[in-house]
Amino acid sequence: MKIEILCTGDEILSGKTTNTNYSYMARQLVENGFDVCWGTTVGDDRQSLVDAFQQASARANVVIVNGGLGPTVDDLSQEVAATAAGVELVLHEEWYNRIAAWYQSRGRKRPQNNTKQAMLPAGAEFIDNPIGTACGFAVDIGTARFFFTPGVPREMFRMMDEQVVPKLKKMRGGDIVTRVKRFHTFGIGESRADQMLNGVEDMVDGNRVKLGFQSHYPQLETKLTARGDSGEELDRMLAPLETAVRERLGNFIVCEDDHSIESNIHDHLSMINGSIVVAEMHSAGEIATRLLTTVDDPKRVKPGIVSLDLLEIEAYVGSRPNRHGLPDLEYAADVAEKLREKTAATHALVVLVNLVVTDEIEQGAGDVFIGISDGAKTKTRLARLPGSHRWIRAGASELGLDCLRRFLAGQPVNEKIDFEQH
Amino acid sequence: MKIEILCTGDEILSGKTTNTNYSYMARQLVENGFDVCWGTTVGDDRQSLVDAFQQASARANVVIVNGGLGPTVDDLSQEVAATAAGVELVLHEEWYNRIAAWYQSRGRKRPQNNTKQAMLPAGAEFIDNPIGTACGFAVDIGTARFFFTPGVPREMFRMMDEQVVPKLKKMRGGDIVTRVKRFHTFGIGESRADQMLNGVEDMVDGNRVKLGFQSHYPQLETKLTARGDSGEELDRMLAPLETAVRERLGNFIVCEDDHSIESNIHDHLSMINGSIVVAEMHSAGEIATRLLTTVDDPKRVKPGIVSLDLLEIEAYVGSRPNRHGLPDLEYAADVAEKLREKTAATHALVVLVNLVVTDEIEQGAGDVFIGISDGAKTKTRLARLPGSHRWIRAGASELGLDCLRRFLAGQPVNEKIDFEQH
Repeated sequence: MKIEILCTGDEILSGKTTNTNYSYMARQLVENGFDVCWGTTVGDDRQSLVDAFQQASARANVVIVNGGLGPTVDDLSQEVAATAAGVELVLHEEWYNRIAAWYQSRGRKRPQNNTKQAMLPAGAEFIDNPIGTACGFAVDIGTARFFFTPGVPREMFRMMDEQVVPKLKKMRGGDIVTRVKRFHTFGIGESRADQMLNGVEDMVDGNRVKLGFQSHYPQLETKLTARGDSGEELDRMLAPLETAVRERLGNFIVCEDDHSIESNIHDHLSMINGSIVVAEMHSAGEIATRLLTTVDDPKRVKPGIVSLDLLEIEAYVGSRPNRHGLPDLEYAADVAEKLREKTAATHALVVLVNLVVTDEIEQGAGDVFIGISDGAKTKTRLARLPGSHRWIRAGASELGLDCLRRFLAGQPVNEKIDFEQH
Repeated sequence: MKIEILCTGDEILSGKTTNTNYSYMARQLVENGFDVCWGTTVGDDRQSLVDAFQQASARANVVIVNGGLGPTVDDLSQEVAATAAGVELVLHEEWYNRIAAWYQSRGRKRPQNNTKQAMLPAGAEFIDNPIGTACGFAVDIGTARFFFTPGVPREMFRMMDEQVVPKLKKMRGGDIVTRVKRFHTFGIGESRADQMLNGVEDMVDGNRVKLGFQSHYPQLETKLTARGDSGEELDRMLAPLETAVRERLGNFIVCEDDHSIESNIHDHLSMINGSIVVAEMHSAGEIATRLLTTVDDPKRVKPGIVSLDLLEIEAYVGSRPNRHGLPDLEYAADVAEKLREKTAATHALVVLVNLVVTDEIEQGAGDVFIGISDGAKTKTRLARLPGSHRWIRAGASELGLDCLRRFLAGQPVNEKIDFEQH
């Protein structure tokens, strides 16, 4: 099956918006055992769309179109699809009523131009959008099946996962089963991970398992994509590889699959009926936000302190005055212990940053001082992270959370990472 | 001049790497007054490349190819370019010697396959790469001029800026100037903004100004893209349109161009030597993080309180016990006043959320209670936001910051927005 992805929209074509929708769609297809053969991007321009639809239809068996389903005059996908398929646009009454109900439930007046979103090419297969007003649809153009999906990312994600990919699997027939096993690490770069995992792919014959990486700083995702005839075959095939990856990447693995470093921390705290309090400086509340937005029990995260001003942190925890006016490790440990006592949390995490001022903003650095205490023991960690303020902030937040995860898991908090200056 | 961008490489095609090279190239072209008409992505596959080159050559006057200039066997751009142009590959001696010197100066042995990088189609125009081993080149295929650029981002950036764009300007001749004027709003959806600005585009003849929208919830960006012969012409052309947009979108405009709602708030506070303290509930620290990561003076943002637990917030500010166990407006006002007094900030912002529990996570709702006080006066705002927890959180953070911006600007904080239930 030859698949083409066709992205529409002036924002994408002009580079105003980076085309992350394309990469999401392509990845989902590849992970489900499909090949993407071609990608096309055109603007909100009638003639370009007609040309693109015709060319794609001659090239591929399946074309997935993204965007152009909105309510405004420059959203042309339905209209051009109907023209290219040689049919009329007709009102899809069910969807028309759904949109009306959607506006009503929100107490909003339906804009007049929203009728447009319920007009589909005659005979098109309707594809539901449970979270928006742009429904999807499928239609044949020439010998290719075209699937139309909305440009709003979260709407497209759901439609791809829940509807388009299953429909494609049905079209493909046969039983090809695929699975993606994912490991999330913090502290190693892509080329080092590639070296550490050298030969893992070859543990299975016949190119049935592919090793891949996706870097989203500060984390790196390592993926094993396997293809086989049954779930049992995949289990058998992947088990030794998973063991090998776990052994080789070791403590750098922060979680697997859909888990996160935060959920890992909450799971640990939940087992011991514990709670966490955080004091943050340059990370500006990012750590607290990440912990709070993922917690199931509000009482597990105690209110801590966030300030760019060390004196405010000292005043809050009642820590000893810091003689240098700068953080150090002993000080981070002291703040962690006092903060824990003050709030009666079982664990305290303190992340203080001293920015090293340089002329060139991208070539700055920050010294990150971390203190973690559970009352019985206190651990510290110092790392110099290079980069811009934003880069240092992301690194400091991640390092703080990772040290906490390691502390809770009984792993060493002091293992050097690739992102720090040695 | 019709320009196509043609990106090559399996990593891009399969979505493993997000195509940020495309957006960079397109943005540089658009900002220099060129139109990008088409984008194509193909893998490292000979037949796809031949097809893509031929089709692009029929469609565009200028084609910019990215990637495929590396030393390995799957880098096919020179070879396919020569085939498509109907010429031989010949050794470019100057570049061959430059690569040799490059390796020597780094004390590294030149890999044998690097000869490949000095093979160019006969008659090609050489394009220098001062920071890598993949040189660029230009060649005619059919009636189109093809420019080949390396896939390594920093090498491509320099080649685009310093060589490709200047060459294109020379090809175009004349002076075309462009400008993008941007307005950022909160509280109106794209289709309503489109209605409110109906006719604005037509205030200038000849399609020289384009109105466009880009929605990134909770904000909406409205753009006027203008093209003319001189900066003065653009000033003259845009002035009445900018006035019209400001009048029609009114208080919903939170900032313009590169400013943000946060920088707007900081500018106001800076003028009066003020400071802000925030108490947050469901927004989980997002407001504080946004204010802290954008502030120039750490003392302008006082440490506040972030908790999902109302009792913790009460304990912190010493507010009166809330009889219902739920937030209300009177209570939000009281917390704002007490928090301001306690921290000696000039302004306090309180954002409390009561989640309405439903079965379907995407169809939940949250009641957002906002209190703002500057000691002299206290304003409140209540809004019911529908959506998932993440959606409500983003909306509550934005609404809180926008109410603060309105408060500081002397605008009404109680203007209804499209995203709330009426």
